Amino acid sequence: MNSSNEYRKEQDSLGEIAVPKHAYYGAQTQRAVNNYQISGLRLPRSIIKAQGVIKASAAKTNMELGLLPKSTGEAIIQAAEEVIQGNWDDQFVVDVYQAGAGTSQNMNINEVIAHRASELLDGTLESHRVHPNDHVNMMQSTNDTFHAAIHLAAAEMLHERLLPSLLQLQKELERKSIELMPIMKSGRTHLHDAVPMRLGQEFAGYSETIKSTYKQIEDTTDALYEIGLGGKAIGTRMNLPPDYIPKIIKEVCNRTNLPFREPANMFQFMQNTNAPIRTMLALKELSIHLIKITSDLRLLASGPRTGLAEISLPSVQPGSTIMPGKVNPAILEMTHMVCCQVIGYETTVATAGIAGQLEINVMMPVIAHTLMESLELLSNALPTLVTKCINGIEGNEEICNHFMQESLALVTALSPIMGYDRAAQIGKEADEKNVKIKEILQEKDLLTPEIVKALNPKGMV
Amino acid sequence: MNSSNEYRKEQDSLGEIAVPKHAYYGAQTQRAVNNYQISGLRLPRSIIKAQGVIKASAAKTNMELGLLPKSTGEAIIQAAEEVIQGNWDDQFVVDVYQAGAGTSQNMNINEVIAHRASELLDGTLESHRVHPNDHVNMMQSTNDTFHAAIHLAAAEMLHERLLPSLLQLQKELERKSIELMPIMKSGRTHLHDAVPMRLGQEFAGYSETIKSTYKQIEDTTDALYEIGLGGKAIGTRMNLPPDYIPKIIKEVCNRTNLPFREPANMFQFMQNTNAPIRTMLALKELSIHLIKITSDLRLLASGPRTGLAEISLPSVQPGSTIMPGKVNPAILEMTHMVCCQVIGYETTVATAGIAGQLEINVMMPVIAHTLMESLELLSNALPTLVTKCINGIEGNEEICNHFMQESLALVTALSPIMGYDRAAQIGKEADEKNVKIKEILQEKDLLTPEIVKALNPKGMV
Amino acid sequence: MNSSNEYRKEQDSLGEIAVPKHAYYGAQTQRAVNNYQISGLRLPRSIIKAQGVIKASAAKTNMELGLLPKSTGEAIIQAAEEVIQGNWDDQFVVDVYQAGAGTSQNMNINEVIAHRASELLDGTLESHRVHPNDHVNMMQSTNDTFHAAIHLAAAEMLHERLLPSLLQLQKELERKSIELMPIMKSGRTHLHDAVPMRLGQEFAGYSETIKSTYKQIEDTTDALYEIGLGGKAIGTRMNLPPDYIPKIIKEVCNRTNLPFREPANMFQFMQNTNAPIRTMLALKELSIHLIKITSDLRLLASGPRTGLAEISLPSVQPGSTIMPGKVNPAILEMTHMVCCQVIGYETTVATAGIAGQLEINVMMPVIAHTLMESLELLSNALPTLVTKCINGIEGNEEICNHFMQESLALVTALSPIMGYDRAAQIGKEADEKNVKIKEILQEKDLLTPEIVKALNPKGMV
Amino acid sequence: MNSSNEYRKEQDSLGEIAVPKHAYYGAQTQRAVNNYQISGLRLPRSIIKAQGVIKASAAKTNMELGLLPKSTGEAIIQAAEEVIQGNWDDQFVVDVYQAGAGTSQNMNINEVIAHRASELLDGTLESHRVHPNDHVNMMQSTNDTFHAAIHLAAAEMLHERLLPSLLQLQKELERKSIELMPIMKSGRTHLHDAVPMRLGQEFAGYSETIKSTYKQIEDTTDALYEIGLGGKAIGTRMNLPPDYIPKIIKEVCNRTNLPFREPANMFQFMQNTNAPIRTMLALKELSIHLIKITSDLRLLASGPRTGLAEISLPSVQPGSTIMPGKVNPAILEMTHMVCCQVIGYETTVATAGIAGQLEINVMMPVIAHTLMESLELLSNALPTLVTKCINGIEGNEEICNHFMQESLALVTALSPIMGYDRAAQIGKEADEKNVKIKEILQEKDLLTPEIVKALNPKGMV
Repeated sequence: MNSSNEYRKEQDSLGEIAVPKHAYYGAQTQRAVNNYQISGLRLPRSIIKAQGVIKASAAKTNMELGLLPKSTGEAIIQAAEEVIQGNWDDQFVVDVYQAGAGTSQNMNINEVIAHRASELLDGTLESHRVHPNDHVNMMQSTNDTFHAAIHLAAAEMLHERLLPSLLQLQKELERKSIELMPIMKSGRTHLHDAVPMRLGQEFAGYSETIKSTYKQIEDTTDALYEIGLGGKAIGTRMNLPPDYIPKIIKEVCNRTNLPFREPANMFQFMQNTNAPIRTMLALKELSIHLIKITSDLRLLASGPRTGLAEISLPSVQPGSTIMPGKVNPAILEMTHMVCCQVIGYETTVATAGIAGQLEINVMMPVIAHTLMESLELLSNALPTLVTKCINGIEGNEEICNHFMQESLALVTALSPIMGYDRAAQIGKEADEKNVKIKEILQEKDLLTPEIVKALNPKGMV
Repeated sequence: MNSSNEYRKEQDSLGEIAVPKHAYYGAQTQRAVNNYQISGLRLPRSIIKAQGVIKASAAKTNMELGLLPKSTGEAIIQAAEEVIQGNWDDQFVVDVYQAGAGTSQNMNINEVIAHRASELLDGTLESHRVHPNDHVNMMQSTNDTFHAAIHLAAAEMLHERLLPSLLQLQKELERKSIELMPIMKSGRTHLHDAVPMRLGQEFAGYSETIKSTYKQIEDTTDALYEIGLGGKAIGTRMNLPPDYIPKIIKEVCNRTNLPFREPANMFQFMQNTNAPIRTMLALKELSIHLIKITSDLRLLASGPRTGLAEISLPSVQPGSTIMPGKVNPAILEMTHMVCCQVIGYETTVATAGIAGQLEINVMMPVIAHTLMESLELLSNALPTLVTKCINGIEGNEEICNHFMQESLALVTALSPIMGYDRAAQIGKEADEKNVKIKEILQEKDLLTPEIVKALNPKGMV
Repeated sequence: MNSSNEYRKEQDSLGEIAVPKHAYYGAQTQRAVNNYQISGLRLPRSIIKAQGVIKASAAKTNMELGLLPKSTGEAIIQAAEEVIQGNWDDQFVVDVYQAGAGTSQNMNINEVIAHRASELLDGTLESHRVHPNDHVNMMQSTNDTFHAAIHLAAAEMLHERLLPSLLQLQKELERKSIELMPIMKSGRTHLHDAVPMRLGQEFAGYSETIKSTYKQIEDTTDALYEIGLGGKAIGTRMNLPPDYIPKIIKEVCNRTNLPFREPANMFQFMQNTNAPIRTMLALKELSIHLIKITSDLRLLASGPRTGLAEISLPSVQPGSTIMPGKVNPAILEMTHMVCCQVIGYETTVATAGIAGQLEINVMMPVIAHTLMESLELLSNALPTLVTKCINGIEGNEEICNHFMQESLALVTALSPIMGYDRAAQIGKEADEKNVKIKEILQEKDLLTPEIVKALNPKGMV
Repeated sequence: MNSSNEYRKEQDSLGEIAVPKHAYYGAQTQRAVNNYQISGLRLPRSIIKAQGVIKASAAKTNMELGLLPKSTGEAIIQAAEEVIQGNWDDQFVVDVYQAGAGTSQNMNINEVIAHRASELLDGTLESHRVHPNDHVNMMQSTNDTFHAAIHLAAAEMLHERLLPSLLQLQKELERKSIELMPIMKSGRTHLHDAVPMRLGQEFAGYSETIKSTYKQIEDTTDALYEIGLGGKAIGTRMNLPPDYIPKIIKEVCNRTNLPFREPANMFQFMQNTNAPIRTMLALKELSIHLIKITSDLRLLASGPRTGLAEISLPSVQPGSTIMPGKVNPAILEMTHMVCCQVIGYETTVATAGIAGQLEINVMMPVIAHTLMESLELLSNALPTLVTKCINGIEGNEEICNHFMQESLALVTALSPIMGYDRAAQIGKEADEKNVKIKEILQEKDLLTPEIVKALNPKGMV
């Protein structure tokens, strides 16, 4: 980000270090850049924004409590608001895989805001009038501030993007369910002939599955709304003015329009990363269901000639580089891949969640990354799934009816009349002779009006 | 279970098969025994009991609806009640790894009840007056009845055993937290010196963690209370009298004293196994936290001479076969192992959960087994953890205080007075000279009354 | 196992404890019984046998080195051989979820052998002439002896049961591949029409997959052949006579006919449980492939009327309790369930494997249990899969040919002649008009001899 | 990448589509860009390079076989070599989460090369003289060419980066083991006092663990060397000239200097993604061990005042934003986080690996992404671990010796002299009186020369 080769010297407790001359970050960020050349990935915008919200809220609170001079406080708030706006995104340069707990990530924003605030006050970022630790990080520790930033970012993402996307999917499945309700088809269990049903009933099941999981995911945000600002390093609130916590939380709520609150117990908040773990578990539940549903749709849409072909999907692109004219269920496959990734990310978060020790879980950066990435992937994939696939699904009534008429499971309707054992013999015979149930009954002169009526699929659904 | 070599012939749609002469099960169970010699494990008592409850409730409902003759219905109910009591456990002989969806498991109980009911009516189990499918399984399918049995068994186990055990653990951690609150110690983050805290605060964090997870697990039972009895094979309620569902659900509630209800959507219930999946995810959350807590306790109890030794655990057995006098944290280790198993079982259930296809998830038997085994393991391990470990924990005040006085993180208290940078230099110097913070301050003549006061750990917590 | 209520007193370093009067185990086993009422499960026969082999081998070695009196040594060997034979299985009473590292399991065998050897020498098991630690456990620690027992048991199980079962499966798939090679069918990619192939080619792929995984599993036994007997508690071989290790390993090899050897580094053996972890990873690979193959077979066998029905599976039992005449792919479903379980067990072992600390991994009992259970499940499921399913598979040539003739992917053969773009248009047109490729070509007067030849499926495979 | 708003029209079988005027990709890539706005991530340079190597090799082979005109072939080769060099990286614009099997990714390179080759021949990329399917993709299908590209990229990455990094780690651990061998310390099992050992022995264990896993990972590359080029869509080699396979494989080997070969069975290669699955399982093994080792090192380095402090780590950055002077084990924590991610990625690949159906596994893009990302993360993290942490570790001899002298497990040395039971009593007494073993012995007048000698730790290692 700095095309020149000019550097300035910055200092931290380990000594001097060269930093690009115009960089707004400082010594500790630079050490992190030097230490961690691992993935080339940075924590996302949503985390940086959440960090900014907290820094602004802390400065405002510290000013109000008389801990921070007004001018310093105001400069910090302005700098933090610039960070929130995204003006300084290129100054956030620490790799996702960094110092435990996100110390480097916290110092990155402390340093950027300190330098920018100094510049606002003195016209030069090298004045060091505003100190990253003493002023910007005042009354905070990485374990409370970065941890809380994860909650903020995830809660906002759920609220603004994932839950609306999920609702959109659920509504579309419901709409499709109604649209496809007139089409009758054969059910299938164990991939074998089962009794008749309506195509719309299949989608009604999917719709309800998503509805139930929506509720489960929504419930997990409750844990995310607990933010331990003011807990300091380990939850003891060391040297904290009594009003600090209510004031900063109120400010965070104002800035986000979300109902954050103090944790039930501050030590619990510090010791573990329960809310991200629980959120990922809920996203795993969603992924399991999405894999099931998208696999079903691919099965129902299989063909066009060598599969079931009960439904048709919209064509979004040619399907094969070698087989001309092929069209694949690409959007469903993409969704399935996203779900595989999210399921893997849940393993990552659980493995990291186990690694907490005593007063902290130092795995927070990887937890933040995988949680936010999971939310991002799903929030993007779901609207694509809805608009490029689900809403264009059409039922192939002729094929559906054909399978229904052929299904050996129609014999189920005979059970109440002639008993399971005799019905089974008729089913077996139809199978062996490769004819329909009705034909066997006719052959045996069993097609009484009662049985004809019983065999009418319309009466079975 | 049958010491004689005598057999009788039984029949199903695939033909005749030899069954032990005095067995209450019949042809289909015998086929399953012949087909599945896999694990030697059976589904647990809790599942068999739940199946019995459903069979009795179905018979009662079918009688009331005039579908089942009174004598047959009453015989089925009596037989089912004997199954519920555990009288016929030895007749449940199908391996856990069996036919998809649990068809064999459902036929096992259908056959046992049919034979026993026939015996009650006719004095011989070979009369076949009561038919396993036509009578015992009337208005049911494996996909509704076995699936519902899993919900029943799991809900009851949660209600009666796991949740009370978890509450017991939470209460003990809370009690211990109060007991250990007077002991001051050093916090540790990144396993490195952190600011002072109280030993009881550590336990307060654990207590709150368990309280939060208790709530999460309790919430998952809501999904288990949805039981799709009456949905038949695929959810279409084929040929079902309208009153069947409210009647059978009322009967199940009466027999279990639990608030079961009809699913929001019957197809959703048939298509997937969401409630067991969600329950396992909640048990994974619990296991992650238990591993963290029991690992912390082992770390705090490490020693007696070569570790931290801040707490002492009760001795429950000699710890080494080669090192005399050793005592290990065996109960904590056992709990950790149980959690590893439960986390693995969640993977099993998720992998099985993904495998649903169209109108059914045929993996139900392995889901039932691992879910119930997880509940069993945790329900047994937690009271052991409480009574043989947690409630005997003692704090070692002298050691705790020693570490607290030595901790270099006391320097944190100087930050507000002299700034982060100067405080860091003092910390660094104390580290290099291997002396206490106070000694460096004395040497530098900085021990002002303000600083002496600031350094008092009592003021930091 | 002891119907009387009589007890005797036994003693260990924690004091006196009551033990059933005729039990061969002693104080420490009894403490474990009292401490661990968790699962009701015991470690399997294969582990007990392996422990017996090591105890006999150690006694022989210690005798030869003059450390153990001949009479004591011989009594221990005889008692150990009785354990190996399975005579004392009912004396192994410690729960799977027990003291870390398996200390209780090791003491269980030490005590059983000590009491039995005392009885052999003195006519009473209460003479205590043979000491469980000083004599039976001589030159051993749980960390070397129980750890090595896991390797022994797993290596033997792999050698005698899993690998032969896997080979049987591979051979059957190969045989079936040859048998089904004449049947031509349509390939399917993305579950959509693809170019023609032979049914036998599908099975050739499965056969090679199993062959490759067989090799991978076989290779993992190499790690199991490293056994750290003589490493004592932490690998330092404290007080160990120099000849001890070669002698005991030679004796173990003699007793097992397997090529065990000293580890490359003794500390590595003590510090981690790599061989079980690696073996489980290989079993996970197998399970992934088995799920894929058995899912494919269920898809190909779907129907009989509403699916692909390209192959038929042998009927092993009625498939539905409600739909008469149904036959499900039950053996394939059972195999899939076993694989879900094994995949979960791999997670268990990995989660346990991460939990090693410094000189030991105390999770060994749960590792032993899940590893051996995985080997058992697969060793039983695979022969069932072969004999009750794979070897009875039949190809349905008529259906296979029908799909092949209909497949729109036949158009692929036109690409080299008329280019991808024109071929794609023809494919698209056939799809829209719902006719065969050939019909479109005829309509367009494009059925030149070259194209007729190109469209012959026989030329495409 | 195109700052102007100008577009040109391109065409595929679904119709016309607007493409940025100067883009080298075409219609199908553009459709993928429109369809997949999911992650913002692209497949890495290593995959694009591997795709380029295959395209160049295919063109050369097709030229030699007379299938491709010389001028076209040479233009393709030149364009492919430019891709290999990285000249056109900005033209690879398809999201990681894309069409199943990577069809879009394959079309992206087909189109870029086709347009660039057309430009080389005609001076304009719009001439369309070279066709992406008919020429660039000639004799290929996504299922053989993209699949093979994954193998190429992974094998090269393993060969050039991961394995050398791993070897570097192993050598450093070995070197450190020798350096630290003189320092004696107490072993710890169950985090409790164990017998003496040398600090270097601990590192010798780590070194051997890495050596063994290096071998395991190296072995997995064997599977990656199988590449199914020429298998076409499903393995049937449809219309393939007999010499094609040996020729193209030879060319790929020449261009990569790696020993790629034809698969043992072409259908197996198409049906599953075994080599990536197996590679990820081996990376999981590595990650499990790295977590154990880095956790151990953090435990040994815990302190400086409140932990074990047996070793010191190099300081790489200030450790806390609130606690001045703190230095954390940041590099070890970063490594642990990378391992959590890789373990999660293995779950992703396994979940994707299970999803194969019949002739293809359409999850290949997500498999490619996570496999390559895992290799990248580890290849970067390991050298950082070595150079910024392991090679600067120092042993704290004084502390190590102190713990060793205090350890109650020294009593183990008394067992052979006085028996396990009496030794245990002495250990217990020392624990209760809080004194050293030696003091108890002195008090009891048991400090015979034999015992003094036995208690010398030097004799125990």
